[in-house]
Amino acid sequence: MPTYKLTYFNSRFYAEPARILFHLAGVPFEDIRIIHGDGTWEQIKDKTPFGQVPVLNINGFEIPQSTAIIRYLATKFGYAGKTPEEQAWADAICDQVRDFMAVPFKDIVVAKRVGKTEEEVSQLINEGFVPGRDAYFKIITRILEKNKSGFLVGDGITFADIVVVENLTTLQKNQLFEASKYPELAALREKVYAIPAIKKWVEARPDTQY
Amino acid sequence: MPTYKLTYFNSRFYAEPARILFHLAGVPFEDIRIIHGDGTWEQIKDKTPFGQVPVLNINGFEIPQSTAIIRYLATKFGYAGKTPEEQAWADAICDQVRDFMAVPFKDIVVAKRVGKTEEEVSQLINEGFVPGRDAYFKIITRILEKNKSGFLVGDGITFADIVVVENLTTLQKNQLFEASKYPELAALREKVYAIPAIKKWVEARPDTQY
Repeated sequence: MPTYKLTYFNSRFYAEPARILFHLAGVPFEDIRIIHGDGTWEQIKDKTPFGQVPVLNINGFEIPQSTAIIRYLATKFGYAGKTPEEQAWADAICDQVRDFMAVPFKDIVVAKRVGKTEEEVSQLINEGFVPGRDAYFKIITRILEKNKSGFLVGDGITFADIVVVENLTTLQKNQLFEASKYPELAALREKVYAIPAIKKWVEARPDTQY
Repeated sequence: MPTYKLTYFNSRFYAEPARILFHLAGVPFEDIRIIHGDGTWEQIKDKTPFGQVPVLNINGFEIPQSTAIIRYLATKFGYAGKTPEEQAWADAICDQVRDFMAVPFKDIVVAKRVGKTEEEVSQLINEGFVPGRDAYFKIITRILEKNKSGFLVGDGITFADIVVVENLTTLQKNQLFEASKYPELAALREKVYAIPAIKKWVEARPDTQY
Protein backbone atom coordinates (compact mmCIF):
# COMPACT_ATOMS: atom_id res chain seq x y z
CA MET A 1 0.00 0.00 0.00
CA PRO A 2 1.33 3.48 -0.83
CA THR A 3 2.37 5.85 1.96
CA TYR A 4 0.04 8.83 2.09
CA LYS A 5 0.96 12.13 3.75
CA LEU A 6 -1.55 14.96 3.83
CA THR A 7 -0.17 18.39 4.76
CA TYR A 8 -2.44 21.26 5.80
CA PHE A 9 -2.93 23.72 8.63
CA ASN A 10 -4.56 22.69 11.89
CA SER A 11 -8.03 23.28 10.38
CA ARG A 12 -10.71 21.19 8.74
CA PHE A 13 -11.56 23.52 5.83
CA TYR A 14 -10.00 22.49 2.52
CA ALA A 15 -8.34 19.31 3.84
CA GLU A 16 -11.06 17.70 5.92
CA PRO A 17 -12.93 15.88 3.12
CA ALA A 18 -9.66 14.13 2.23
CA ARG A 19 -9.13 13.12 5.88
CA ILE A 20 -12.68 11.78 6.04
CA LEU A 21 -12.14 9.76 2.85
CA PHE A 22 -9.08 8.11 4.41
CA HIS A 23 -11.06 7.21 7.53
CA LEU A 24 -14.06 6.03 5.50
CA ALA A 25 -11.85 3.77 3.38
CA GLY A 26 -9.84 2.59 6.39
CA VAL A 27 -6.60 3.64 4.74
CA PRO A 28 -3.84 4.91 7.03
CA PHE A 29 -2.27 8.32 6.31
CA GLU A 30 -0.05 10.83 8.01
CA ASP A 31 -2.12 13.86 9.03
CA ILE A 32 0.51 16.62 9.05
CA ARG A 33 -0.79 19.85 10.60
CA ILE A 34 1.23 23.04 10.23
CA ILE A 35 0.99 25.32 13.25
CA HIS A 36 0.36 28.96 12.38
CA GLY A 37 3.09 31.31 13.49
CA ASP A 38 5.87 28.85 14.32
CA GLY A 39 7.71 29.48 11.04
CA THR A 40 7.08 26.04 9.52
CA TRP A 41 4.78 27.34 6.80
CA GLU A 42 7.28 29.98 5.69
CA GLN A 43 9.90 27.24 5.42
CA ILE A 44 7.88 24.85 3.29
CA LYS A 45 5.67 27.23 1.25
CA ASP A 46 8.04 27.52 -1.70
CA LYS A 47 8.66 23.80 -1.75
CA THR A 48 4.98 23.02 -2.36
CA PRO A 49 3.95 22.71 -6.03
CA PHE A 50 1.61 25.74 -6.01
CA GLY A 51 2.85 27.62 -2.89
CA GLN A 52 -0.20 26.46 -0.96
CA VAL A 53 -1.71 23.60 1.04
CA PRO A 54 -3.33 21.09 1.22
CA VAL A 55 -0.81 18.90 -0.56
CA LEU A 56 -1.17 15.13 -0.74
CA ASN A 57 2.08 13.19 -0.98
CA ILE A 58 1.83 9.61 -2.27
CA ASN A 59 5.20 7.86 -2.10
CA GLY A 60 6.83 11.17 -3.02
CA PHE A 61 4.37 12.15 -5.78
CA GLU A 62 2.57 15.36 -4.83
CA ILE A 63 -0.92 16.56 -5.66
CA PRO A 64 -1.80 20.20 -4.91
CA GLN A 65 -5.30 21.74 -4.85
CA SER A 66 -7.94 20.40 -2.46
CA THR A 67 -10.59 19.26 -4.93
CA ALA A 68 -8.02 17.45 -7.06
CA ILE A 69 -6.85 15.61 -3.92
CA ILE A 70 -10.39 14.75 -2.85
CA ARG A 71 -11.37 13.51 -6.32
CA TYR A 72 -8.18 11.44 -6.61
CA LEU A 73 -8.80 9.71 -3.28
CA ALA A 74 -12.53 9.29 -3.92
CA THR A 75 -11.81 7.65 -7.27
CA LYS A 76 -9.18 5.38 -5.74
CA PHE A 77 -11.38 4.38 -2.79
CA GLY A 78 -14.67 4.03 -4.70
CA TYR A 79 -16.56 7.14 -3.60
CA ALA A 80 -16.54 9.12 -6.84
CA GLY A 81 -19.87 7.96 -8.27
CA LYS A 82 -20.62 4.75 -10.11
CA THR A 83 -20.87 6.15 -13.66
CA PRO A 84 -19.27 9.05 -15.56
CA GLU A 85 -22.60 10.87 -15.18
CA GLU A 86 -22.64 10.41 -11.39
CA GLN A 87 -19.03 11.55 -11.24
CA ALA A 88 -19.91 14.67 -13.25
CA TRP A 89 -22.65 15.54 -10.77
CA ALA A 90 -20.39 14.99 -7.80
CA ASP A 91 -17.87 17.28 -9.52
CA ALA A 92 -20.50 19.92 -10.25
CA ILE A 93 -21.73 19.95 -6.64
CA CYS A 94 -18.18 20.29 -5.30
CA ASP A 95 -17.51 23.21 -7.61
CA GLN A 96 -20.72 24.84 -6.44
CA VAL A 97 -19.49 24.60 -2.83
CA ARG A 98 -16.12 25.91 -3.97
CA ASP A 99 -17.68 28.96 -5.66
CA PHE A 100 -19.64 29.67 -2.51
CA MET A 101 -16.56 29.33 -0.30
CA ALA A 102 -14.33 31.38 -2.63
CA VAL A 103 -16.42 34.53 -2.49
CA PRO A 104 -19.37 34.96 -0.06
CA PHE A 105 -17.79 32.93 2.74
CA LYS A 106 -14.18 34.04 2.27
CA ASP A 107 -15.26 37.69 2.30
CA ILE A 108 -16.49 37.25 5.87
CA VAL A 109 -13.45 35.33 7.07
CA VAL A 110 -11.20 38.05 5.62
CA ALA A 111 -13.33 40.86 7.06
CA LYS A 112 -13.06 39.32 10.53
CA ARG A 113 -9.33 38.72 10.14
CA VAL A 114 -8.54 42.32 9.11
CA GLY A 115 -10.47 43.57 12.13
CA LYS A 116 -13.63 45.03 10.59
CA THR A 117 -16.17 46.15 13.17
CA GLU A 118 -19.00 43.86 14.21
CA GLU A 119 -21.39 46.17 12.36
CA GLU A 120 -19.39 45.99 9.14
CA VAL A 121 -19.15 42.20 9.33
CA SER A 122 -22.86 41.98 10.02
CA GLN A 123 -23.65 44.15 6.98
CA LEU A 124 -21.41 41.97 4.82
CA ILE A 125 -23.19 38.87 6.11
CA ASN A 126 -26.64 40.24 5.36
CA GLU A 127 -25.91 41.77 1.98
CA GLY A 128 -23.24 39.51 0.48
CA PHE A 129 -23.24 36.24 2.33
CA VAL A 130 -26.90 35.44 3.02
CA PRO A 131 -28.11 35.69 -0.60
CA GLY A 132 -25.18 33.51 -1.74
CA ARG A 133 -25.80 30.95 0.99
CA ASP A 134 -29.52 30.80 0.34
CA ALA A 135 -29.04 30.25 -3.39
CA TYR A 136 -26.53 27.50 -2.64
CA PHE A 137 -28.72 25.84 0.01
CA LYS A 138 -31.64 25.90 -2.43
CA ILE A 139 -29.60 24.04 -5.03
CA ILE A 140 -28.46 21.38 -2.57
CA THR A 141 -31.95 20.97 -1.11
CA ARG A 142 -33.45 20.58 -4.60
CA ILE A 143 -30.91 17.88 -5.45
CA LEU A 144 -31.74 15.98 -2.24
CA GLU A 145 -35.47 16.20 -2.93
CA LYS A 146 -34.95 14.88 -6.44
CA ASN A 147 -32.43 12.14 -5.69
CA LYS A 148 -34.47 10.36 -2.98
CA SER A 149 -31.59 8.18 -1.64
CA GLY A 150 -30.78 10.74 1.06
CA PHE A 151 -27.37 11.24 -0.57
CA LEU A 152 -26.63 13.84 -3.22
CA VAL A 153 -25.60 11.55 -6.07
CA GLY A 154 -26.81 8.04 -6.85
CA ASP A 155 -27.64 5.63 -4.04
CA GLY A 156 -24.51 5.84 -1.89
CA ILE A 157 -22.07 8.29 -0.37
CA THR A 158 -19.76 10.22 -2.69
CA PHE A 159 -17.15 12.91 -2.10
CA ALA A 160 -19.85 15.48 -2.90
CA ASP A 161 -21.77 14.54 0.28
CA ILE A 162 -18.61 14.83 2.34
CA VAL A 163 -17.69 18.23 0.89
CA VAL A 164 -21.18 19.64 1.45
CA VAL A 165 -21.51 18.24 4.99
CA GLU A 166 -18.12 19.57 6.09
CA ASN A 167 -19.03 22.94 4.67
CA LEU A 168 -22.23 22.91 6.76
CA THR A 169 -20.19 22.12 9.87
CA THR A 170 -17.86 25.05 9.18
CA LEU A 171 -20.82 27.36 8.65
CA GLN A 172 -22.45 26.12 11.85
CA LYS A 173 -19.30 26.67 13.89
CA ASN A 174 -19.37 30.26 12.65
CA GLN A 175 -23.06 30.85 13.40
CA LEU A 176 -23.93 30.87 9.69
CA PHE A 177 -26.00 27.68 9.53
CA GLU A 178 -28.83 26.75 11.87
CA ALA A 179 -29.56 23.06 11.36
CA SER A 180 -33.17 23.30 12.57
CA LYS A 181 -34.03 25.71 9.74
CA TYR A 182 -32.83 23.39 6.99
CA PRO A 183 -34.16 19.89 7.72
CA GLU A 184 -33.01 18.34 4.41
CA LEU A 185 -29.45 19.58 4.88
CA ALA A 186 -29.44 18.55 8.53
CA ALA A 187 -30.64 15.07 7.54
CA LEU A 188 -27.82 14.72 5.00
CA ARG A 189 -25.29 15.66 7.65
CA GLU A 190 -26.74 13.19 10.14
CA LYS A 191 -26.72 10.44 7.53
CA VAL A 192 -23.07 11.04 6.61
CA TYR A 193 -21.92 11.45 10.23
CA ALA A 194 -23.77 8.25 11.20
CA ILE A 195 -21.49 6.10 9.03
CA PRO A 196 -19.42 4.31 11.71
CA ALA A 197 -15.92 5.12 10.37
CA ILE A 198 -16.87 8.77 9.87
CA LYS A 199 -18.66 9.00 13.22
CA LYS A 200 -15.57 7.72 15.00
CA TRP A 201 -13.29 10.25 13.31
CA VAL A 202 -15.68 13.20 13.73
CA GLU A 203 -15.84 12.50 17.47
CA ALA A 204 -12.06 12.17 17.77
CA ARG A 205 -10.79 14.92 15.48
CA PRO A 206 -9.33 18.22 16.69
CA ASP A 207 -12.08 20.77 17.30
CA THR A 208 -11.25 23.82 15.19
CA GLN A 209 -13.31 26.84 14.15
CA TYR A 210 -12.58 26.35 10.45
CA MET B 1 -23.80 8.63 -30.69
CA PRO B 2 -25.48 10.79 -28.03
CA THR B 3 -26.86 14.21 -28.91
CA TYR B 4 -24.85 16.93 -27.17
CA LYS B 5 -26.17 20.44 -26.59
CA LEU B 6 -23.97 23.02 -24.91
CA THR B 7 -25.73 26.17 -23.69
CA TYR B 8 -23.83 29.32 -22.77
CA PHE B 9 -23.71 33.01 -23.60
CA ASN B 10 -22.07 34.27 -26.78
CA SER B 11 -18.65 34.23 -25.08
CA ARG B 12 -15.72 31.86 -24.91
CA PHE B 13 -15.01 32.12 -21.15
CA TYR B 14 -16.33 29.18 -19.11
CA ALA B 15 -17.70 27.24 -22.11
CA GLU B 16 -14.89 27.44 -24.65
CA PRO B 17 -12.74 24.54 -23.38
CA ALA B 18 -15.78 22.27 -23.83
CA ARG B 19 -16.32 23.56 -27.37
CA ILE B 20 -12.65 22.94 -28.17
CA LEU B 21 -12.87 19.40 -26.81
CA PHE B 22 -15.79 18.66 -29.14
CA HIS B 23 -13.84 19.99 -32.12
CA LEU B 24 -10.65 18.16 -31.08
CA ALA B 25 -12.55 14.87 -30.77
CA GLY B 26 -14.52 15.48 -33.98
CA VAL B 27 -17.80 15.02 -32.12
CA PRO B 28 -20.76 17.08 -33.33
CA PHE B 29 -22.64 19.23 -30.79
CA GLU B 30 -25.17 22.01 -30.77
CA ASP B 31 -23.47 25.26 -29.74
CA ILE B 32 -26.37 27.20 -28.22
CA ARG B 33 -25.48 30.84 -27.53
CA ILE B 34 -27.81 32.97 -25.44
CA ILE B 35 -27.94 36.59 -26.55
CA HIS B 36 -27.65 39.08 -23.68
CA GLY B 37 -30.67 41.33 -23.30
CA ASP B 38 -33.20 39.54 -25.52
CA GLY B 39 -34.98 37.92 -22.56
CA THR B 40 -33.94 34.32 -23.31
CA TRP B 41 -31.69 34.02 -20.27
CA GLU B 42 -34.42 35.23 -17.90
CA GLN B 43 -36.73 32.59 -19.41
CA ILE B 44 -34.38 29.64 -19.01
CA LYS B 45 -32.38 30.58 -15.88
CA ASP B 46 -34.68 28.84 -13.40
CA LYS B 47 -34.88 25.76 -15.57
CA THR B 48 -31.12 25.16 -15.39
CA PRO B 49 -29.94 22.85 -12.58
CA PHE B 50 -27.94 25.55 -10.74
CA GLY B 51 -29.46 28.75 -12.17
CA GLN B 52 -26.40 29.27 -14.33
CA VAL B 53 -24.65 28.34 -17.56
CA PRO B 54 -22.78 26.59 -19.11
CA VAL B 55 -24.98 23.52 -19.07
CA LEU B 56 -24.22 20.43 -21.12
CA ASN B 57 -27.24 18.40 -22.19
CA ILE B 58 -26.58 14.78 -23.24
CA ASN B 59 -29.74 13.13 -24.54
CA GLY B 60 -31.67 15.07 -21.90
CA PHE B 61 -29.26 14.50 -19.00
CA GLU B 62 -27.84 17.81 -17.82
CA ILE B 63 -24.45 18.66 -16.31
CA PRO B 64 -24.00 22.11 -14.75
CA GLN B 65 -20.67 23.74 -13.78
CA SER B 66 -18.00 24.36 -16.40
CA THR B 67 -15.15 22.27 -14.99
CA ALA B 68 -17.45 19.29 -14.41
CA ILE B 69 -18.52 19.54 -18.08
CA ILE B 70 -14.95 19.85 -19.33
CA ARG B 71 -13.73 16.92 -17.22
CA TYR B 72 -16.67 14.75 -18.32
CA LEU B 73 -15.98 15.38 -22.00
CA ALA B 74 -12.21 15.07 -21.60
CA THR B 75 -12.64 11.71 -19.88
CA LYS B 76 -15.06 10.52 -22.55
CA PHE B 77 -12.86 11.69 -25.45
CA GLY B 78 -9.49 10.62 -23.99
CA TYR B 79 -7.99 13.96 -22.99
CA ALA B 80 -8.11 13.64 -19.20
CA GLY B 81 -4.61 12.22 -18.64
CA LYS B 82 -3.46 8.63 -19.00
CA THR B 83 -3.25 7.71 -15.29
CA PRO B 84 -5.09 8.75 -12.11
CA GLU B 85 -1.99 10.78 -11.23
CA GLU B 86 -2.02 12.65 -14.55
CA GLN B 87 -5.74 13.28 -14.13
CA ALA B 88 -5.12 14.68 -10.64
CA TRP B 89 -2.57 17.12 -12.02
CA ALA B 90 -4.87 18.20 -14.83
CA ASP B 91 -7.55 18.75 -12.19
CA ALA B 92 -5.20 20.72 -9.96
CA ILE B 93 -4.10 23.00 -12.80
CA CYS B 94 -7.71 23.67 -13.82
CA ASP B 95 -8.60 24.60 -10.26
CA GLN B 96 -5.62 26.94 -10.11
CA VAL B 97 -6.94 28.72 -13.23
CA ARG B 98 -10.38 28.76 -11.65
CA ASP B 99 -9.12 30.37 -8.45
CA PHE B 100 -7.34 33.00 -10.50
CA MET B 101 -10.43 33.71 -12.60
CA ALA B 102 -12.78 33.74 -9.60
CA VAL B 103 -11.06 36.58 -7.79
CA PRO B 104 -8.25 38.67 -9.40
CA PHE B 105 -9.70 38.50 -12.91
CA LYS B 106 -13.38 38.75 -12.01
CA ASP B 107 -12.71 41.80 -9.85
CA ILE B 108 -11.55 43.68 -12.95
CA VAL B 109 -14.40 42.52 -15.16
CA VAL B 110 -16.88 43.61 -12.47
CA ALA B 111 -15.11 46.96 -11.92
CA LYS B 112 -15.33 47.74 -15.64
CA ARG B 113 -18.96 46.64 -15.80
CA VAL B 114 -20.09 48.83 -12.90
CA GLY B 115 -18.41 51.81 -14.53
CA LYS B 116 -15.37 52.39 -12.30
CA THR B 117 -13.04 55.09 -13.67
CA GLU B 118 -10.02 54.15 -15.74
CA GLU B 119 -7.84 55.17 -12.82
CA GLU B 120 -9.71 52.93 -10.38
CA VAL B 121 -9.54 49.97 -12.77
CA SER B 122 -5.86 50.59 -13.32
CA GLN B 123 -5.21 50.63 -9.57
CA LEU B 124 -7.13 47.38 -9.16
CA ILE B 125 -5.08 45.82 -11.96
CA ASN B 126 -1.76 46.85 -10.42
CA GLU B 127 -2.56 46.02 -6.81
CA GLY B 128 -4.90 43.04 -7.03
CA PHE B 129 -4.63 41.49 -10.44
CA VAL B 130 -0.94 41.64 -11.34
CA PRO B 131 0.38 39.84 -8.21
CA GLY B 132 -2.27 37.12 -8.67
CA ARG B 133 -1.48 36.73 -12.37
CA ASP B 134 2.26 36.63 -11.81
CA ALA B 135 1.97 33.94 -9.14
CA TYR B 136 -0.27 31.91 -11.45
CA PHE B 137 2.00 32.38 -14.47
CA LYS B 138 4.99 31.29 -12.37
CA ILE B 139 3.23 28.07 -11.42
CA ILE B 140 2.31 27.25 -15.02
CA THR B 141 5.78 28.14 -16.32
CA ARG B 142 7.43 25.94 -13.69
CA ILE B 143 5.20 23.01 -14.67
CA LEU B 144 6.12 23.46 -18.34
CA GLU B 145 9.84 23.62 -17.54
CA LYS B 146 9.60 20.45 -15.50
CA ASN B 147 7.34 18.42 -17.80
CA LYS B 148 9.45 18.80 -20.97
CA SER B 149 6.78 17.55 -23.43
CA GLY B 150 5.61 21.09 -24.13
CA PHE B 151 2.24 20.17 -22.63
CA LEU B 152 1.32 20.62 -18.99
CA VAL B 153 0.62 17.00 -18.07
CA GLY B 154 2.21 13.84 -19.48
CA ASP B 155 3.20 13.66 -23.14
CA GLY B 156 0.01 14.77 -24.86
CA ILE B 157 -2.74 17.38 -24.73
CA THR B 158 -5.17 17.31 -21.79
CA PHE B 159 -8.06 19.54 -20.79
CA ALA B 160 -5.61 21.41 -18.53
CA ASP B 161 -3.72 22.72 -21.57
CA ILE B 162 -6.96 23.84 -23.17
CA VAL B 163 -8.19 25.62 -20.05
CA VAL B 164 -4.88 27.46 -19.55
CA VAL B 165 -4.53 28.43 -23.21
CA GLU B 166 -8.07 29.78 -23.44
CA ASN B 167 -7.48 31.77 -20.28
CA LEU B 168 -4.36 33.30 -21.88
CA THR B 169 -6.42 34.28 -24.92
CA THR B 170 -9.01 35.97 -22.74
CA LEU B 171 -6.30 37.83 -20.84
CA GLN B 172 -4.67 38.90 -24.10
CA LYS B 173 -7.92 40.19 -25.53
CA ASN B 174 -8.20 42.35 -22.42
CA GLN B 175 -4.62 43.65 -22.55
CA LEU B 176 -3.63 41.59 -19.50
CA PHE B 177 -1.22 39.16 -21.18
CA GLU B 178 1.61 40.08 -23.51
CA ALA B 179 2.76 36.91 -25.25
CA SER B 180 6.28 38.21 -25.94
CA LYS B 181 6.97 38.57 -22.21
CA TYR B 182 6.10 34.94 -21.39
CA PRO B 183 7.77 32.72 -24.02
CA GLU B 184 6.91 29.41 -22.28
CA LEU B 185 3.22 30.29 -22.06
CA ALA B 186 3.19 31.62 -25.62
CA ALA B 187 4.80 28.36 -26.82
CA LEU B 188 2.12 26.29 -25.08
CA ARG B 189 -0.59 28.34 -26.74
CA GLU B 190 1.03 27.98 -30.17
CA LYS B 191 1.39 24.23 -29.68
CA VAL B 192 -2.26 23.80 -28.71
CA TYR B 193 -3.58 26.13 -31.42
CA ALA B 194 -1.42 24.34 -34.04
CA ILE B 195 -3.39 21.09 -33.63
CA PRO B 196 -5.35 21.02 -36.92
CA ALA B 197 -8.87 20.49 -35.48
CA ILE B 198 -8.30 23.24 -32.89
CA LYS B 199 -6.66 25.58 -35.40
CA LYS B 200 -9.64 25.28 -37.71
CA TRP B 201 -12.13 26.06 -34.92
CA VAL B 202 -10.08 28.93 -33.45
CA GLU B 203 -9.97 30.59 -36.89
CA ALA B 204 -13.70 30.09 -37.46
CA ARG B 205 -15.18 30.83 -34.02
CA PRO B 206 -17.02 34.02 -33.11
CA ASP B 207 -14.57 36.72 -32.02
CA THR B 208 -15.67 37.82 -28.55
CA GLN B 209 -13.90 39.85 -25.86
CA TYR B 210 -14.44 37.21 -23.18
